[in-house]
Amino acid sequence: MTALKGNLMFGQSGGPTSVINASAAGVFIEALKHSEVIEKVYGAANGIVGILNEKFYDIGQEDLNELEMLKYTPSSSLGSCRYKLADAAKDDTDYKRLLEVFQKYNIRYFFYNGGNDSMDTCNKISKFMQNAGYDCVVMGVPKTIDNDLFGTDHCPGFASAAKYIATTTMEVYQDARVYDTGMICVIEVMGRHAGWLTAATRLANEKGCGPDLIYLPEVAFDMDKMLADVKKIYAETGKVIIAVSEGVQTKDGVFIPELVAKDDVAVDSFGHKQLGGTASVLAEFLKKETGAKVRGIELSLMQRCASHCASQIDIDESFLAGRTAVIKALEGMTDYMVGFERDSGSEYKCNIKMIPLNDVANTEKKVPLEWINKEGNFVGQEFVDYALPLIKEETKQIKEDGLPRFAKLKKVLVK
Amino acid sequence: MTALKGNLMFGQSGGPTSVINASAAGVFIEALKHSEVIEKVYGAANGIVGILNEKFYDIGQEDLNELEMLKYTPSSSLGSCRYKLADAAKDDTDYKRLLEVFQKYNIRYFFYNGGNDSMDTCNKISKFMQNAGYDCVVMGVPKTIDNDLFGTDHCPGFASAAKYIATTTMEVYQDARVYDTGMICVIEVMGRHAGWLTAATRLANEKGCGPDLIYLPEVAFDMDKMLADVKKIYAETGKVIIAVSEGVQTKDGVFIPELVAKDDVAVDSFGHKQLGGTASVLAEFLKKETGAKVRGIELSLMQRCASHCASQIDIDESFLAGRTAVIKALEGMTDYMVGFERDSGSEYKCNIKMIPLNDVANTEKKVPLEWINKEGNFVGQEFVDYALPLIKEETKQIKEDGLPRFAKLKKVLVK
Repeated sequence: MTALKGNLMFGQSGGPTSVINASAAGVFIEALKHSEVIEKVYGAANGIVGILNEKFYDIGQEDLNELEMLKYTPSSSLGSCRYKLADAAKDDTDYKRLLEVFQKYNIRYFFYNGGNDSMDTCNKISKFMQNAGYDCVVMGVPKTIDNDLFGTDHCPGFASAAKYIATTTMEVYQDARVYDTGMICVIEVMGRHAGWLTAATRLANEKGCGPDLIYLPEVAFDMDKMLADVKKIYAETGKVIIAVSEGVQTKDGVFIPELVAKDDVAVDSFGHKQLGGTASVLAEFLKKETGAKVRGIELSLMQRCASHCASQIDIDESFLAGRTAVIKALEGMTDYMVGFERDSGSEYKCNIKMIPLNDVANTEKKVPLEWINKEGNFVGQEFVDYALPLIKEETKQIKEDGLPRFAKLKKVLVK
Repeated sequence: MTALKGNLMFGQSGGPTSVINASAAGVFIEALKHSEVIEKVYGAANGIVGILNEKFYDIGQEDLNELEMLKYTPSSSLGSCRYKLADAAKDDTDYKRLLEVFQKYNIRYFFYNGGNDSMDTCNKISKFMQNAGYDCVVMGVPKTIDNDLFGTDHCPGFASAAKYIATTTMEVYQDARVYDTGMICVIEVMGRHAGWLTAATRLANEKGCGPDLIYLPEVAFDMDKMLADVKKIYAETGKVIIAVSEGVQTKDGVFIPELVAKDDVAVDSFGHKQLGGTASVLAEFLKKETGAKVRGIELSLMQRCASHCASQIDIDESFLAGRTAVIKALEGMTDYMVGFERDSGSEYKCNIKMIPLNDVANTEKKVPLEWINKEGNFVGQEFVDYALPLIKEETKQIKEDGLPRFAKLKKVLVK
């Protein structure tokens, strides 16, 4: 078939990662090579919100060298959003507006870069355009540190976050045992529903510097059991490192910070409920129950933006995902997300696997329960075999004066 | 003069840094070359506490390659302590015990690696040994991320922490402005009395990704002024990044977390005062006062143990400090700390400067007030010129499977 002639719109959505712009680079650099078909390449400011507001950049005016630099620039350079489209059957206002913008700017290629919600958005837009009789190729480019997208071996962004988390865990392990006194350390990792990132602390155990206890949201969290686990190890060694997902919940579905917030006294002097993070709440609890010195550490935004510690494999794959989206679109595919399938060989190798958006949308992939030990407080070798190959290479990020050199985009608005 | 014949004892003290073991490597590798004078090289387990308890390792039994690896291994590999010796005039129990151990093991070289307190310890021990007529060469090897030791251009450990802090600030800057909604981000940095580390966030401004406001402990902190600063920038740009030292105090000498803890309602459901960090208290305050989305980030232990982001200049200088201590001791010097003096040329170069322990002990070096702007909310170019040359080179840390390869010591106890 003949490829559609027209313009391409690319948007970034949801929480950023340290390699999300590598996918943007892949889309842009590949798309700009096909000017006979893709006449203009646009980057939406703040994802779908930018399209609704007719705010997007003309990528053709950027320096190619700076587009290459996007590979090593963390956190959605075009801007992101957390905008959820309504069900078109109930309210099609936004869809009609999108169609209007697509028609006005002759958008025939729409690529959206994000996680579960974004794949859902992609899918809904594609269906609407088809029903409206407007020809437009729609492609999902995966991105999420959470690693919870369905159908792909892993997600762009996960490996770099995992590398930072494992590295930091090793370093904190070294730091947390320098004194001759007891010490308990609680490391809080992102992931509301899936424990992939928290499980990444397990990689540090491979180097003898890992946590003693790992709690994922896949297993109901029991405060008393955790306390017993900690007390046992503390009695034996005087040092305990705990990795815990921000998303762990009790069997009644209560998040850890809510255990405190529910209580009336947990109000600070400004009149605010002290919600606090999971780590700080657990640290306070363990301090009281054990009398030990306890430190709570939240890896916060760093785990998703630490580009200086990104995995080059992740960067290359993220770039490839973007590039492949263009290539497959030009081959005539639509309504797919680019995914990865791992070779069964002993050397790590991933091949492209195109996954229908319908299958991906709103399905979460969690850590298999059989990879978690029976006690629900540690992660098995299966996870190591899965994740370690993904973090092996160091980033080729360029430094200036010992600091990262990020891409400098002109961001020329399309009028 | 003829160098004293006997054994060498090296100890690490106080809070660790990501390069503290590079100084240990410098002492050990150099000392082991001089076996005609330094017969045995010992490493104290947990600093002075290990000596008091006769617990130390025979470094001669370690592999030279692993001692080299110490350069890239964060956080006191021998163990540290926070043990403060009494004034010998009031209570000389510990000093007598040290003398006993020194005599028993023929310790003629005592090197102590640490910050202000450790240099004071060094000095006290040296005086006592002299008064007791026991010949022992005493050397201080500097170490502190706080950069507050007197008489030296900068302190081993500072540059690596500064590099991590500046890099992380740049990355968080990118992350904190991806959405089209307002965002205030408070980054809390270590430093109870001196603002060197918090000032390091200023380096990120050189790359266009730095904080809008920087608050150091050198200037009295005014909550209302800070709020006005934030509101002004927020109204203009919708994004504010604030770097604040954990040590900022109001003009009445009250630390930020104490502003909350003093209040009776600030008690959590476990019955504990919610002390919280400076960042989380300021974040709560700003949330209430501005209604904006606010995130508090504590760089926690990571800023002092992130060896993967260490400065190779810092590593080399830390090693040199340790090595120089041995060389100068063999030349007959005693009661000195190894320090650095910067060349006045345009290219960065530091020379060794030996500083009498008497001058160093318990004197704190703070950020010059003339380097802080008049409003007390930002840091000047003078700091950039001072600090940027220190962070320029990347660590040569070896990776295995994409994770840091730390030194593996045998730690054979001396019996």
